[in-house]
Amino acid sequence: DFEKAFEEVKPAFGASTETLESYRTHGIIPCGDSFDHLRQTLGMLVQQVKNSDKTPLISVVLEGPVGSGKSALAASSAIESDFPFCKVITSETMVGFAEQSKASQITKVFEDAYKSPLSVVILDDIERLLEYVAIGPRFSNTILQALLVLVKRQPPPGHKLLIIGTTSMSDVMESMGLNEVFNVSLHVPSLRVDEIVKVLRALDCFAVADIPSAVDLLTSICAKVVPMKKLLLWVEMARQDVPEGHKLTLQKWEQALRDLS
Amino acid sequence: DFEKAFEEVKPAFGASTETLESYRTHGIIPCGDSFDHLRQTLGMLVQQVKNSDKTPLISVVLEGPVGSGKSALAASSAIESDFPFCKVITSETMVGFAEQSKASQITKVFEDAYKSPLSVVILDDIERLLEYVAIGPRFSNTILQALLVLVKRQPPPGHKLLIIGTTSMSDVMESMGLNEVFNVSLHVPSLRVDEIVKVLRALDCFAVADIPSAVDLLTSICAKVVPMKKLLLWVEMARQDVPEGHKLTLQKWEQALRDLS
Amino acid sequence: DFEKAFEEVKPAFGASTETLESYRTHGIIPCGDSFDHLRQTLGMLVQQVKNSDKTPLISVVLEGPVGSGKSALAASSAIESDFPFCKVITSETMVGFAEQSKASQITKVFEDAYKSPLSVVILDDIERLLEYVAIGPRFSNTILQALLVLVKRQPPPGHKLLIIGTTSMSDVMESMGLNEVFNVSLHVPSLRVDEIVKVLRALDCFAVADIPSAVDLLTSICAKVVPMKKLLLWVEMARQDVPEGHKLTLQKWEQALRDLS
Amino acid sequence: DFEKAFEEVKPAFGASTETLESYRTHGIIPCGDSFDHLRQTLGMLVQQVKNSDKTPLISVVLEGPVGSGKSALAASSAIESDFPFCKVITSETMVGFAEQSKASQITKVFEDAYKSPLSVVILDDIERLLEYVAIGPRFSNTILQALLVLVKRQPPPGHKLLIIGTTSMSDVMESMGLNEVFNVSLHVPSLRVDEIVKVLRALDCFAVADIPSAVDLLTSICAKVVPMKKLLLWVEMARQDVPEGHKLTLQKWEQALRDLS
Amino acid sequence: DFEKAFEEVKPAFGASTETLESYRTHGIIPCGDSFDHLRQTLGMLVQQVKNSDKTPLISVVLEGPVGSGKSALAASSAIESDFPFCKVITSETMVGFAEQSKASQITKVFEDAYKSPLSVVILDDIERLLEYVAIGPRFSNTILQALLVLVKRQPPPGHKLLIIGTTSMSDVMESMGLNEVFNVSLHVPSLRVDEIVKVLRALDCFAVADIPSAVDLLTSICAKVVPMKKLLLWVEMARQDVPEGHKLTLQKWEQALRDLS
Amino acid sequence: DFEKAFEEVKPAFGASTETLESYRTHGIIPCGDSFDHLRQTLGMLVQQVKNSDKTPLISVVLEGPVGSGKSALAASSAIESDFPFCKVITSETMVGFAEQSKASQITKVFEDAYKSPLSVVILDDIERLLEYVAIGPRFSNTILQALLVLVKRQPPPGHKLLIIGTTSMSDVMESMGLNEVFNVSLHVPSLRVDEIVKVLRALDCFAVADIPSAVDLLTSICAKVVPMKKLLLWVEMARQDVPEGHKLTLQKWEQALRDLS
Ligand SMILES: Nc1ncnc2c1ncn2[C@@H]1O[C@H](COP(=O)(O)OP(=O)(O)OP(=O)(O)O)[C@@H](O)[C@H]1O
Ligand SMILES: Nc1ncnc2c1ncn2[C@@H]1O[C@H](COP(=O)(O)OP(=O)(O)OP(=O)(O)O)[C@@H](O)[C@H]1O
Ligand SMILES: Nc1ncnc2c1ncn2[C@@H]1O[C@H](COP(=O)(O)OP(=O)(O)OP(=O)(O)O)[C@@H](O)[C@H]1O
Ligand SMILES: Nc1ncnc2c1ncn2[C@@H]1O[C@H](COP(=O)(O)OP(=O)(O)OP(=O)(O)O)[C@@H](O)[C@H]1O
Ligand SMILES: Nc1ncnc2c1ncn2[C@@H]1O[C@H](COP(=O)(O)OP(=O)(O)OP(=O)(O)O)[C@@H](O)[C@H]1O
Ligand SMILES: Nc1ncnc2c1ncn2[C@@H]1O[C@H](COP(=O)(O)OP(=O)(O)OP(=O)(O)O)[C@@H](O)[C@H]1O
Ligand SMILES: [Mg+2]
Ligand SMILES: [Mg+2]
Ligand SMILES: [Mg+2]
Ligand SMILES: [Mg+2]
Ligand SMILES: [Mg+2]
Ligand SMILES: [Mg+2]
Repeated sequence: DFEKAFEEVKPAFGASTETLESYRTHGIIPCGDSFDHLRQTLGMLVQQVKNSDKTPLISVVLEGPVGSGKSALAASSAIESDFPFCKVITSETMVGFAEQSKASQITKVFEDAYKSPLSVVILDDIERLLEYVAIGPRFSNTILQALLVLVKRQPPPGHKLLIIGTTSMSDVMESMGLNEVFNVSLHVPSLRVDEIVKVLRALDCFAVADIPSAVDLLTSICAKVVPMKKLLLWVEMARQDVPEGHKLTLQKWEQALRDLS
Repeated sequence: DFEKAFEEVKPAFGASTETLESYRTHGIIPCGDSFDHLRQTLGMLVQQVKNSDKTPLISVVLEGPVGSGKSALAASSAIESDFPFCKVITSETMVGFAEQSKASQITKVFEDAYKSPLSVVILDDIERLLEYVAIGPRFSNTILQALLVLVKRQPPPGHKLLIIGTTSMSDVMESMGLNEVFNVSLHVPSLRVDEIVKVLRALDCFAVADIPSAVDLLTSICAKVVPMKKLLLWVEMARQDVPEGHKLTLQKWEQALRDLS
Repeated sequence: DFEKAFEEVKPAFGASTETLESYRTHGIIPCGDSFDHLRQTLGMLVQQVKNSDKTPLISVVLEGPVGSGKSALAASSAIESDFPFCKVITSETMVGFAEQSKASQITKVFEDAYKSPLSVVILDDIERLLEYVAIGPRFSNTILQALLVLVKRQPPPGHKLLIIGTTSMSDVMESMGLNEVFNVSLHVPSLRVDEIVKVLRALDCFAVADIPSAVDLLTSICAKVVPMKKLLLWVEMARQDVPEGHKLTLQKWEQALRDLS
Repeated sequence: DFEKAFEEVKPAFGASTETLESYRTHGIIPCGDSFDHLRQTLGMLVQQVKNSDKTPLISVVLEGPVGSGKSALAASSAIESDFPFCKVITSETMVGFAEQSKASQITKVFEDAYKSPLSVVILDDIERLLEYVAIGPRFSNTILQALLVLVKRQPPPGHKLLIIGTTSMSDVMESMGLNEVFNVSLHVPSLRVDEIVKVLRALDCFAVADIPSAVDLLTSICAKVVPMKKLLLWVEMARQDVPEGHKLTLQKWEQALRDLS
Repeated sequence: DFEKAFEEVKPAFGASTETLESYRTHGIIPCGDSFDHLRQTLGMLVQQVKNSDKTPLISVVLEGPVGSGKSALAASSAIESDFPFCKVITSETMVGFAEQSKASQITKVFEDAYKSPLSVVILDDIERLLEYVAIGPRFSNTILQALLVLVKRQPPPGHKLLIIGTTSMSDVMESMGLNEVFNVSLHVPSLRVDEIVKVLRALDCFAVADIPSAVDLLTSICAKVVPMKKLLLWVEMARQDVPEGHKLTLQKWEQALRDLS
Repeated sequence: DFEKAFEEVKPAFGASTETLESYRTHGIIPCGDSFDHLRQTLGMLVQQVKNSDKTPLISVVLEGPVGSGKSALAASSAIESDFPFCKVITSETMVGFAEQSKASQITKVFEDAYKSPLSVVILDDIERLLEYVAIGPRFSNTILQALLVLVKRQPPPGHKLLIIGTTSMSDVMESMGLNEVFNVSLHVPSLRVDEIVKVLRALDCFAVADIPSAVDLLTSICAKVVPMKKLLLWVEMARQDVPEGHKLTLQKWEQALRDLS
């Protein structure tokens, strides 16, 4: 039946380090202090779980606009933690499953984590896990209730667990009481002008002298702040037929921005 | 039982190129710059998917009034892409199926697409796939959640996918968060006066001298802008008993427009 | 079980020409220009389907007050079309069935129609098919979605289909997006004074001289406009104990109108 | 299981003439012109069904306050019709059944009626059949849709059917479109002062001279108008320990009215 | 399964006289005219059912604040009726059962009652039987509809039935149309000052001279009126460590009242 | 299946004294009069149940902000009661179970308690047991109705039961009528300045002289009042890399507070 149909594919979306890598396909491009601070804080929480006996459970939620880099940051922290058990809970491996079944799979990951001395569990895109839609609003209360309990449930004595959630709807999570069950909440912002400059430089796609104008075009045609993922996509599209080794011209850049927005 | 009853018919609505052709039964009549630009942009996106290794997944949604030609444009792009895997997901082949079953079929098409190196998947008439109705409003959250994930899910490494959605309810899609998961959104408009002129000329149904008056009649009796599909139907009805080889008179044209609206 | 209980009765409400006749048990009484025009337009659409290769599917909805004659008009057009396949989809043959089962039966009729070269399908009393009730409002979205697709779905190449819907709730249909899927919408009105006169004359139940007064009584006691079916019922009731061969007196007419309204 | 539990009891609430009698346990006490007129009109409709070939189906709904005598009037008309098939559809024989099962039983009664040349079907307490409750409001749309169709469905040629509905919520029925499917609607009122006098006289429970004062007490302590059933209950309660052969005193009457309201 | 789990316990909450006694564990303490009048009226209704042939069914609902003594009064009347069949329908014996199952059990009690010549059925805490909660509001319409019919359904000829309902939400019952199906409605009030005095005297827990002050403390710290059950609990709590044979001091009384409210 | 998946883990969250201890992993730190008074009152209620024959059932609800120490207080009272049967009903052992199943498990605990002469049952985090979420709002009415009855149901004669509930949503409980079924309601507050001082002293983590400044920092950066659990977490996080035997500096404390809030 339906759920079986996925089994062959699921492994491809498994949860080994390899899978974690797939959450940062464009790498982690250095882009300024706020992102560095975020990564440091996450690192500090990893250490806290590892070292303190009185805090065997720490939970943190990363919230920010669509495409700002939440999943990449969460995956990075998990990879760098070197914890023996790292797993991403994502709706991508549960498309079309019934809510009971999803809740069961989510719980199973936590049960597995409790068996490892040190674990990271990533709850990626919590609103999607909850099957949330603003019209209604509708969502799976079964899954919500499971999360409300699982994020607070202490692992058994001697076991330690770091939970990292990501969401682009922190107001929704608040109204569901989900924010409250996380110990810490961190904001992942869209890129501001100075950060966009850093990213464009790192991408090495414009002539250095063109970068200020390129950023001007971007912020005037589109928006003042741009999420990381969108920026990377637009650059990629604009340089489509730029021959290997050539830089992107401002003209082509403007053209692409106008076509797509 | 019920679902079986359709099996004999389904193949007739399959997804070979032949089926794609059925979405442009009246061909693609040249009608001006905006449509040309639309077709070019779609073509560019096809190339982007084919050529860039960093954008293995591109998704675009065509939105515009009922009958403006969205499905025909989507099908044309698919045909012209020459991708080995082209499939239309349409509610026409799933009439009366339960939402679980529809979600399963939709997911299956994506799973199949992931196996081809280059694929186009058309999500035709998304509001119908979602079983949307404004009273309530009601819709299938199961199918919505599947689409929200599937449109964003990266194909496995080395595989590339272009997703083309069509909808005449872009505000509804926005309130469901569906617009946000598409990379690009393009508007397919109704025909303006100058475009109507081009179409009537191409159809060769009026004496050339009558065309301005015919357009005047149309825009004064009906509306300032007319969707392509409606225009073609009205012409067809008006010339019903016009003998082979004769042109449509303005009188008959006016008569038909008054009768039907 | 439940659905079986009906099987013995169903044939009696089948869809042969005989059944179609049962929708005009009082015949079609000539009553003026608007009705003649309606019948002509319907006839024209029948011809359009038959003759034009570019319009293999035409759909028309007849909307108007309860009892105005919509079902009788639809049935007449079907009978007069002489198409080999004519079927009425009516809730009368599906009382108490589950919505899934109704959707399945409706779809089955369309599938059957696709096998005939020329078909008429009547969707009688669409709000009843949809199990609509204003409180809520509630209705079967399963059936609605099936209709939204079926009314637009092209028959296979070489096959032609005329769909005639009837409804007394055109505003409801509009809010459901159902009006939009029909190519043509025609209004079937209640009878105005001059039309009532024509009907009473045709019925030959009053002395000719009494007819103006009879109409006066009717419009002052009841309403300015009267649907055909109600008019026929009231006349029938009023002349209950009028002896064979006698005319209805104005006194008895007034009495009956006062008693029943 | 549950439904079986009733089978032994059901026959006791069957639908023979004996059962019909149970709807007028206090008989039909003559109480003035409006009730006489109601009974005449009902009798006239019985004759109409019997005699006219053009009106094989007549439906009438009796609406009025709780306890005003609607069920008794409906049952009387059925008994006096002498039609071979008379059946009451009442929620009393379907307590606790699922709505599907109720709809099925209701439909079954109509199917049986269609087999008799002349039938009366009483739909008693329609709001109860519909499982209506004002909070929400909630009701069974399955049963509602069945009634909407069954009340309009013509019996097969040569068969005739009178449908009598009763309800104390005519506004609810209106908002459900149920009023519209009945051909005739009749109001059964509470008793006014002069009618109360007639009933008290017929009951012979007060000294004749006391009756005006008894009515005064009633209308000043309780309400201006009183439904028949309540009046009969109050009299019965007041005369509880009045010795056989004695009349009820005004003092005891006043006492009882004050205690119970 | 679940329902079986209760079977061993159920008998403990059966419906013999012993069970009825458990509804007045603190006895019936005489507390003034209003309660005496209530008990008389209930006694009168018992006699009415027993003696009058024209009122084989009487239904009365006791409504009043939580803890005012409704269940105890109902149970007392049943015990004192000496009717061969007395049964309490209470949610305590149906915890966790599905609504269908509850409706079935309730109906079963009525069916059993119909077999006895004289019966009392107590519907205790009707809002709990209905699974009512103000948020929503939600309740079991299945159970509501069963009650609406059962409370009005006449027992078979020769059988007599008294129904006593209790509720602390008479406004909710009104909005559900439940009040209307009961013949009589009686209000069971909280205790007023003079009644509290009577109860405290009967309990013999204070020095007689202290009683006025004790009542003063109660009405100033808590509320002007106090339900019987709360009063008994508070006294019991206050005198917890008062040695056997000693009276409760005002000081301890004040302390207890402040701690608990 | 799903429910089985938990069985291996459940014992770890069983209900022996060991489990009860897990609710006060940070012990009970003395922090002032209000907490002492709370513990005394709870102790008094334990004695009341044990000693008084007239109050075999006492129910108390502890309500207060998230993390204020409600569960720890409830567990402490249970441990100190020395009652032979002590059980915690918590959603942690029922993650993902269907509501029917949860209601059944809850009822089972009560049934078991009735078999012991003296029992304590803790209903921990009632809003979680009810699967409550503010959006909607939604909750399990099945579980709510079970609680409404179970909290009021007397244990069988000779058996005694203390019920302690905890909740951080006392307004929600009020709107559900749950507050009303508890005999006593006690408020567990967040810590005020003087209480925070006491806790920091007991933790011995700051130099004594720094404590006033540490509290100042806390109340100015975060909030005026702080729940116990949050305070303990923040101290723990702040002293992460403080070497064994050293005190926490004010600088590090400020840093940590700013990072996490
Ligand atoms: N400094 C950075 N931080 C985060 N992501 C980065 C950074 N530099 C590059 N990236 C890339 O940007 C992309 C960020 O996308 P990601 O999916 O993490 O965003 P997101 O916020 O989770 O989006 P969504 O809201 O759609 O879930 C990744 O491909 C990642 O490799
Ligand atoms: N330039 C054109 N662009 C699009 N369609 C065209 C053009 N010229 C002719 N057509 C014809 O017009 C019709 C457009 O109908 P189509 O079904 O694509 O519209 P649609 O917007 O998808 O309608 P709907 O909103 O009902 O789904 C097709 O039959 C197509 O062959
Ligand atoms: N000119 C006419 N047009 C339509 N019906 C006519 C005409 N003359 C007589 N009739 C009779 O009037 C009746 C019209 O009823 P019909 O059921 O068609 O109305 P309707 O609009 O479908 O009602 P409803 O809204 O209840 O479905 C039929 O019995 C038909 O035989
Ligand atoms: N003239 C009368 N008309 C009707 N009922 C009468 C009359 N005289 C006496 N009765 C008695 O009054 C009672 C009327 O009760 P009935 O159940 O018919 O009222 P109802 O309107 O159906 O009440 P409900 O709204 O509760 O269904 C019956 O017992 C009937 O025998
Ligand atoms: N005069 C009295 N009337 C009623 N109850 C009394 C009286 N004197 C003492 N009692 C005792 O008071 C208690 C009343 O509680 P009871 O459960 O009947 O109240 P209730 O109104 O049904 O409460 P609830 O609203 O919680 O159902 C019983 O224990 C009963 O024995
Ligand atoms: N005086 C105290 N009272 C209560 N808890 C204390 C006290 N001193 C220390 N603690 C510790 O504080 C913590 C209080 O957390 P607890 O889970 O009881 O709070 P809670 O109010 O139940 O939280 P939640 O609202 O999340 O359920 C426990 O770890 C407990 O050991
Ligand atoms: Mg993400
Ligand atoms: Mg389309
Ligand atoms: Mg009709
Ligand atoms: Mg009645
Ligand atoms: Mg009670
Ligand atoms: Mg707690």
